[in-house]
Amino acid sequence: MPSSDQAAAPLTPTIVFENLQAHQRTAALKAAVELDIFRAVGQGPGDVASIARHARASERGIRILCDFLVVNGLLQKEDGRYKHTPSSAAFLDPNSPACLASIVSFLSLRELREPCEHLADIVRNGRTVLPGQGTVEPENPVWVEFAQSMAPMMAPLAGPLGAIVLQGRTDPMKVLDIAAGHGLFGIEIAKQNPQAHVTGLDWLPVLRVALDNAKKAGVEDRYDMLPGSAFEVDFGGPYDAVLLTNFLHHFDADTCVDLLKKVHRSLKPGGRTATLEFVPNDDRVSPPMPAAFAMSMLITTASGDAYTFAELSDMHTRAGYKDVTKHPVAMSPHTIVMART
Amino acid sequence: MPSSDQAAAPLTPTIVFENLQAHQRTAALKAAVELDIFRAVGQGPGDVASIARHARASERGIRILCDFLVVNGLLQKEDGRYKHTPSSAAFLDPNSPACLASIVSFLSLRELREPCEHLADIVRNGRTVLPGQGTVEPENPVWVEFAQSMAPMMAPLAGPLGAIVLQGRTDPMKVLDIAAGHGLFGIEIAKQNPQAHVTGLDWLPVLRVALDNAKKAGVEDRYDMLPGSAFEVDFGGPYDAVLLTNFLHHFDADTCVDLLKKVHRSLKPGGRTATLEFVPNDDRVSPPMPAAFAMSMLITTASGDAYTFAELSDMHTRAGYKDVTKHPVAMSPHTIVMART
Repeated sequence: MPSSDQAAAPLTPTIVFENLQAHQRTAALKAAVELDIFRAVGQGPGDVASIARHARASERGIRILCDFLVVNGLLQKEDGRYKHTPSSAAFLDPNSPACLASIVSFLSLRELREPCEHLADIVRNGRTVLPGQGTVEPENPVWVEFAQSMAPMMAPLAGPLGAIVLQGRTDPMKVLDIAAGHGLFGIEIAKQNPQAHVTGLDWLPVLRVALDNAKKAGVEDRYDMLPGSAFEVDFGGPYDAVLLTNFLHHFDADTCVDLLKKVHRSLKPGGRTATLEFVPNDDRVSPPMPAAFAMSMLITTASGDAYTFAELSDMHTRAGYKDVTKHPVAMSPHTIVMART
Repeated sequence: MPSSDQAAAPLTPTIVFENLQAHQRTAALKAAVELDIFRAVGQGPGDVASIARHARASERGIRILCDFLVVNGLLQKEDGRYKHTPSSAAFLDPNSPACLASIVSFLSLRELREPCEHLADIVRNGRTVLPGQGTVEPENPVWVEFAQSMAPMMAPLAGPLGAIVLQGRTDPMKVLDIAAGHGLFGIEIAKQNPQAHVTGLDWLPVLRVALDNAKKAGVEDRYDMLPGSAFEVDFGGPYDAVLLTNFLHHFDADTCVDLLKKVHRSLKPGGRTATLEFVPNDDRVSPPMPAAFAMSMLITTASGDAYTFAELSDMHTRAGYKDVTKHPVAMSPHTIVMART
């Protein structure tokens, strides 16, 4: 016990408790979304009785739940009434265009939660307790849920990614969107460049979600579907740009290099890749969210990781790319990594 | 969306993610205790390979787990090696006398964790999904686990509580310890005053744990057992002092008042009660740990709560006590509330 530190700041077991009880925070946010608490708070007046009426719930339950959300930074309380914080107003009130409450559905999936109950075994074995490659097994239905419910979280990233990939290009170009999911990244390219033609690659049931989104965006005539595994299907091409969003973190470095080589072969000379990732600093413990993301990859995959920029840069170099650059996305924990053939 | 706030500080969805993924923090701390990580870190040198050898675990798993513990404030990392924080050294290393890693066993009990999966229903109904009175149903076996595994967390509170109750008294006195659990509070009274005689009240299987602890402390000849329910058993007496530790929060205010009246009848004139509780401020959202404790009572009881001092004071006054005072316990989230007949 370092007595100098101890003398400087009184020690309490608070941090141990906070971590041991942290599962209650997940449960509280899920329950609040399910009970439509954030809409009720946004509508006001924010007293326990009116929120309870809106949620058709008990006042004891609502009071304790809302206080708990305040403790965890998801609401504010003033003169006994609950109010939005700037982030709950933006990201949790269904009346906000940026609301991402639907991501609760994806992050609550049994396939993602259940392995977490066996974390000691996972750490011993160094891989998910899910069979095979975990969440990246062929046709895993979690990706349909991802495409449907994670779109609101990814939507704000699409604009910046499109701008970085296009750099103002408005001429005819072909773009491949690997692991397209909801399709929003490729669709954004088609929106920003009316002469761009996009091919979305993913499992067929997932691509149906992407195609729906392409129709909503009015770009379905320039949106093709390439169903299958990124490791097995013929990419076609050649492409001006290939998007690899939220994908490399599921695999080990050698697998990523192999895939990047395959992408390289599908690119025109001077063509570019755009990889969207959680990229921690070299210390791997900052910033908090990209660093913590490695835990999700430990729990759900056989060999995935949150890769540092040095590691991503090395993968690209080994696969024959040059000019590897990183572009942090404003107001987001994500980073875009660009490279060219 | 409050645009002024938004302009002042860029909004990110980080807090939403942190809360949605918080269950991973609970899983990580449990896994780290199970894998004996904190002992390995204390022994050094703290590199991934040596911790993995100690834990008989994979290096990938250990690296990601330890990084995640750093992100969550439970370890430090320096030049790629893991080191204790002051609090992990004190409270999580099994070589520390203050180690409370055993509380993981209590807080991980299925009876406490499982209801959390149904929090929306609990909020709707305003009570635990556990049958009857929840964790305070007669003879609930969770209290044997509490007595066995929560002792290290309560031990540091025993000295301060004993001193406040005794105020230097060394004359013969009788003390009743209601919901004795591990027995440490009553035992401390017997240790501080060699003429004190203590009666521990709890379910019989729990009292066996208390009696074991009384033997270890060498005070078993002044330690009696009164098995049964605090609401049904005859307290005997009269007592100089009655301890009510970690108990009132399980019940509604009227039930607490009834119990305090029964306690009053068992006290000598001028006799005192000592209640140990998590006591939030009047705003009910600070300090974080006492405020958050209400959620545990919502999840596991029919009508319990984290009571403010005003509420506890009112209960005592309604039950006929006077001079209700509060005594925060240093380096702890607990408060002792004293009152006299």
